Amino acid sequence: MKKIFKLFNYYIKFLGYLTIIFFTFLLGYFLYYYVNAKYFYQPTEPVHLSQKTDYLASISGNKTQEKPNVIIIFFDDLGYGDLSCYGNQLIKTPNIDSVAANGLKMTSFYAASPVCTPSRAALLTGRYPIRSNTHQHVFFPENSGVATYRKMRGYKNEIPKDEILLAEPLQALGYKTAMIGKWHLGDRKEHLPNDFGFESYYGVHFSNDMKPFDVYQNEEITITAEEVKQENLTENYTQEATKFIRENKDSPFFLYFAHTFPHVPHYASEKHSGKSEGGLYGDVVEDLDRSVGNIMKTLEELDLEENTLVIITSDNGADYHGSAGNQRGRKQETYEGGQLIPMLVYWKGKIEKNTVSDAMAMNIDIFPTILSVLGIPLPEDRIIDGKNLLPIWTKNSKSPHQFLYYFSAFGGKLVAIRGEKYKYHRRQQKAFINPFYPYPNPLTLFADSTLSDLNRDTEAHNLAMKYPEITQDLHTQLEKMDNDLAKNPRGWKE
Amino acid sequence: MKKIFKLFNYYIKFLGYLTIIFFTFLLGYFLYYYVNAKYFYQPTEPVHLSQKTDYLASISGNKTQEKPNVIIIFFDDLGYGDLSCYGNQLIKTPNIDSVAANGLKMTSFYAASPVCTPSRAALLTGRYPIRSNTHQHVFFPENSGVATYRKMRGYKNEIPKDEILLAEPLQALGYKTAMIGKWHLGDRKEHLPNDFGFESYYGVHFSNDMKPFDVYQNEEITITAEEVKQENLTENYTQEATKFIRENKDSPFFLYFAHTFPHVPHYASEKHSGKSEGGLYGDVVEDLDRSVGNIMKTLEELDLEENTLVIITSDNGADYHGSAGNQRGRKQETYEGGQLIPMLVYWKGKIEKNTVSDAMAMNIDIFPTILSVLGIPLPEDRIIDGKNLLPIWTKNSKSPHQFLYYFSAFGGKLVAIRGEKYKYHRRQQKAFINPFYPYPNPLTLFADSTLSDLNRDTEAHNLAMKYPEITQDLHTQLEKMDNDLAKNPRGWKE
Repeated sequence: MKKIFKLFNYYIKFLGYLTIIFFTFLLGYFLYYYVNAKYFYQPTEPVHLSQKTDYLASISGNKTQEKPNVIIIFFDDLGYGDLSCYGNQLIKTPNIDSVAANGLKMTSFYAASPVCTPSRAALLTGRYPIRSNTHQHVFFPENSGVATYRKMRGYKNEIPKDEILLAEPLQALGYKTAMIGKWHLGDRKEHLPNDFGFESYYGVHFSNDMKPFDVYQNEEITITAEEVKQENLTENYTQEATKFIRENKDSPFFLYFAHTFPHVPHYASEKHSGKSEGGLYGDVVEDLDRSVGNIMKTLEELDLEENTLVIITSDNGADYHGSAGNQRGRKQETYEGGQLIPMLVYWKGKIEKNTVSDAMAMNIDIFPTILSVLGIPLPEDRIIDGKNLLPIWTKNSKSPHQFLYYFSAFGGKLVAIRGEKYKYHRRQQKAFINPFYPYPNPLTLFADSTLSDLNRDTEAHNLAMKYPEITQDLHTQLEKMDNDLAKNPRGWKE
Repeated sequence: MKKIFKLFNYYIKFLGYLTIIFFTFLLGYFLYYYVNAKYFYQPTEPVHLSQKTDYLASISGNKTQEKPNVIIIFFDDLGYGDLSCYGNQLIKTPNIDSVAANGLKMTSFYAASPVCTPSRAALLTGRYPIRSNTHQHVFFPENSGVATYRKMRGYKNEIPKDEILLAEPLQALGYKTAMIGKWHLGDRKEHLPNDFGFESYYGVHFSNDMKPFDVYQNEEITITAEEVKQENLTENYTQEATKFIRENKDSPFFLYFAHTFPHVPHYASEKHSGKSEGGLYGDVVEDLDRSVGNIMKTLEELDLEENTLVIITSDNGADYHGSAGNQRGRKQETYEGGQLIPMLVYWKGKIEKNTVSDAMAMNIDIFPTILSVLGIPLPEDRIIDGKNLLPIWTKNSKSPHQFLYYFSAFGGKLVAIRGEKYKYHRRQQKAFINPFYPYPNPLTLFADSTLSDLNRDTEAHNLAMKYPEITQDLHTQLEKMDNDLAKNPRGWKE
């Protein structure tokens, strides 16, 4: 009896030690990531901050022929199939459809990430999210549990000061600059919209499902999280936007209007509640459509149409309540449905009506395109991954990209590449050999890389073995990018 | 020091006890399921077995006007979008397309389950899988690890003897009956094809990714798992099938031809290797298409076309290498992509060429339809959930179903219902309140039930709150079915 008790005691201790070993490994795991990420990524260096200052200073002397106003209307989680002009049969978006009918609709336009923060960084910097160290999923409020966890893993929680955001060169050129809506690029001091070229800011730091959800006017809270009524948010934003346009009708202006919706949780204004055939999600999108209508009407009223470039797009593919059209996958996935988004461009007199382009492009292209429109040279101290889309917009040219790259939502790893016709997806699980599934067939569930024909198939059939040379070429190209990124993730030139 | 050591010792013991408590709970969990399932489901009762015998005996006296041959060609994992006649742009299936062109194509036809075993049971019994206790995912080889685990959870691993499978009434009527291909309804003695009305059987007990993968001729192994060449399997099956047709050209026959492919792992015959534009998966499907061509040619050659009813369909939606067309979801999911499948019917002189029907139907309908064609009354001791589709096939009538039900792949729980226009999906996660996401919005990610407009949307937008009455009606109907199934899962009548 005593012996059994003793044996049991040993057994209990054995299990106890096992548990301790487990937690030690867990700690080691976090330590590994922390140290790895800390030293893998180049920190902000004073040299780049001063190069940025020099670059912006050089712009103010620029003499450009034309200074059109620029408005970017940026939706949150709006899917490829959420607008009637992109095939939705339940949701009615007459105002946005009219922008499409009077301008350009792009059908192969991508967000640079299947999630929020990295995509926004890409839009504003013209660089893949890894350049600005915003690539490992979204930012969280400082001191929140998730932010602390993410920092333990060595991830950043704000966009670095040495990045050049679109508002900065425009401000340097004399534009009035404003941001309205969701920032999501960090909430630490010196990393807020006003610190990156936006002279005025009205909006929120994070997504509407994160806390605290205060509404800011520049650096002051104007509506507290307790008082904010999300159903009024689209209208609040829109009023601020039209006010800004009216106040600056005589000077060139740049408005970055980043809506909070249709991100979850969903709130539509009273005016739209219960109206859409697409349910609450439809109400929210139709509310946004009315906002676009108000902006366009304001431009018409002020006779600014010919002098204003309007861009309407989204930050990533459809969420679980939106439509990805006929694409495979959704938000957070690197399938097309996760990153393919609506993209409309309106510029009266410059872009022909009813233009449709299937040239592949990405939101990294917006920064260099706008700079090119304004005759501002690109910064020379850093890689700008985006390309000038103006030839597509005005002459329906081919894509300036030979390849586009896809980065995973979690961790921001380079996972896929597309050329004009084919997309190659490198599966991370490749190395894992399942002892219970010992088949030689390389097409086992999720086990291997895929090659997809994007023109004739929605990422269903794997053509990797059918076209080994194409696969190898794309794989080589992916590995080259991988190596380049490992050597110089932030993309500094000499 | 000694005190610290003592404290540490206590801590170690504490962790050890925690671990033991954890495993005790785990054991309890299995015990709970085992006991629950053991007593929830009605076991095979001698009374139903003898009623089955009486029913089959009553058929042999039947005098029917016509006795057409019946061939069911059943693919494994072929998706809704995998055939060229269903929109595939890479894979070429001219033989199957020709069947569609010369007969009927159904565009709202469902498998009764998003996985293999339950769907096959439904096809052969005319009943929802829960009736035959085949609903909790697929069967595994007896004594395999997974089968043991499943039995611990109280699940069955073979179809009960008291079920009436389609071959049995046909055999009773004097048909020559054969099964070729994959059974997947259990591998225990007395639960094999020869025990359920198939006079001859050539095929495999399980999927081609399960072991041992022996090929049987009736109850004897004819090709051992070590010797089988999967690349020849489609051709082996086809030769057996045409041989059976030739041998029985003068007597009415029933052939259930259940292909092994395009289930993973993929093997195509040498003739088709590397030929399809759809890659290896395309090769496999084109190989199957050739098999269909051989069957059809044999019928033509023997002048059996007018006297043979041919049905071509699949057991569930697309796997990860197949195409679900534009539907959301895939195999294992109760989204449309998991259960919507191709369905073609050919019967020269009876079914008009180029007929397309979007009437909703399910593979549970095939049993009662064929019995109706042959003038055999349905068994009266049990519920047959399926309906007669002949009016759809020959007169393009409306669906005989007011509702169709969807059961989850894991556990076979009733989760969704569709009427003519709307599908209601009851989410199981409803009761879980996430303390980190305290928003009142009921449309939170996966948190709530959904209502989808199947005619105008591919399960993207949730209309549950838009149409609360429709939602409530469908919910009530679902609960009614739930209650009926709880009271009488096997569907015995008094």
